[in-house]
This record gives sequence, structure tokens and C-alpha cells, in this order.
Amino acid sequence: MFHEMKEFEKLEDDITTTPEILNRDCFGPNKFFSAIVAENEKKEIAGYSIYFKAYSTFQGRMLYMEDIYVVPNYRHLGVGKKLLKKVASIAVSEDCCRIHFAALEWNKNATNWYKKVGGIDLTDFEEWHLFRIGREALEKYSE
Amino acid sequence: MFHEMKEFEKLEDDITTTPEILNRDCFGPNKFFSAIVAENEKKEIAGYSIYFKAYSTFQGRMLYMEDIYVVPNYRHLGVGKKLLKKVASIAVSEDCCRIHFAALEWNKNATNWYKKVGGIDLTDFEEWHLFRIGREALEKYSE
Repeated sequence: MFHEMKEFEKLEDDITTTPEILNRDCFGPNKFFSAIVAENEKKEIAGYSIYFKAYSTFQGRMLYMEDIYVVPNYRHLGVGKKLLKKVASIAVSEDCCRIHFAALEWNKNATNWYKKVGGIDLTDFEEWHLFRIGREALEKYSE
Repeated sequence: MFHEMKEFEKLEDDITTTPEILNRDCFGPNKFFSAIVAENEKKEIAGYSIYFKAYSTFQGRMLYMEDIYVVPNYRHLGVGKKLLKKVASIAVSEDCCRIHFAALEWNKNATNWYKKVGGIDLTDFEEWHLFRIGREALEKYSE
């Protein structure tokens, strides 16, 4: 049921990645991420997850799960559970101390599910805030 | 002034990494992170940053900066600025759309600095919360 993703497309705005770019960054020599897909019996994609290797200086190897997504028609069928179980088993087999990921606070379906399976909200418990510095600011700052 | 870190030690509790583990995970074939160090003229370490390759499905390559640390005796001398500038220039040269990192909300020195150089608090602006699932829960869930 699971194999590495070759390409996928999405339909939203402000997407600058293309199947070629995703393919390069997942399968090329300068690998940035890994992916798993869930398929139905007709080999149609029901969901996917992407993740990458991450690290804690104190505790060692981690995985960071960037996305976990189930196609609307396939929701409430356990697809997300299978994807998360697969990511969990990869993390264990890679000798990781934990996985990290970010979730939107208003998405209670997701956050309640994560908490049910042992997820801890580090923003609530330890005041960790996620920050971004965008390309333009990086270019300016690195000059 | 900057070169890749070979090993470093820290003195805090609940540290399970060792110089050997850090060396394996930074320089071995199964690389999990990269590191830069700042040295003074006597080659003493004044600070370091570790980061790893990260990914946005929509926007592509990113770096995730896990740590940026300046030894107390070397603070207020621009060491952190040099480290962050180096991470920014690596991100630009690696064709990254942005860098991500987490900061503690109460650490206003850090968060004000990040905001001054163009950092955006995604927790405040978009309600992103950082989550962790620890090893024990991962093992249980992946069974």
C-alpha cells in the first residue's frame, strides 16, 4: 500500500513547486524530503505524508512531519491513521527520539487526534513559537 | 572563521547525544544535520548553529535552524549576528525559499532580534503550534 511518491499535484494558489522540482528534491542527490502515499485498490492516491530528517542537539535524531493529508473522499476510513503509523514506524526504525510537526490551533480535529495518540503541544506547554524568515529578508541579511 | 563543527560538548541534563553520536549524524553517510561554529582568534568556540534541510510542499526547499547559541563570554559582540548571517547565506545558496526555527516566547531578546531582521512569528500570525510525539508513543502507535 505504501511506496515512495513519484510526483503529485495540488490545486491551490501560491504554489511554486512543480512535479519536476518535487521529484528532484525527493529523489535527487541533494535530497530534501521523503514521502509516503496511501493508495486504494485502483492505485488512486488517497493521501500522503511528507517528512524529513531533523535533529535535536541534546536528544539526537528526529523526523519532522511536514504534511499529512487525506483526500476528502477517503476521510474517516483510517487513511490518516495508517499514514501516521507508517511515519511513526519509520521514525522508530531510523532510531529517532521523537517526531516534530506543526498544526494549526483552530484545526481541532487534527490537534485532538495528535493529542490522543500521545502528541504534546509544545507551544502550549513550553511557549515554543514557530518562526519564519523569508527569502527576501534572508538575501538582504546575508549581504 | 567558520568551518563545520567536529564535536562539541554541553553540560546540561537530559542530554543523550555524545560527541560520537553528533559526529555520526553530522558527518556520517546517514546525515541528519549540519553545523557551523564561530571561533575567536585562539580557535576557541564562541558560538555555533545547527540546521538541517527542510521542505515546504508548496514552496520547496527550506532550512530549519535548530540551534543558534553564543557562549556567555562572547555575547553582545556580534557573534550571533555572524552565525545567523551565515545560515541565511547558506539558505540562499541552497536555493531555499525561507528558514524556519522555533523560539521561546518569553525569550524577548531572541524574538525581538528575529523580528528585527525580518522574522515572522507564525504562531502569532497563523496559529501554528509546534507538536512533538515522543519515542514511547511512537513505538506504541506504530505496533
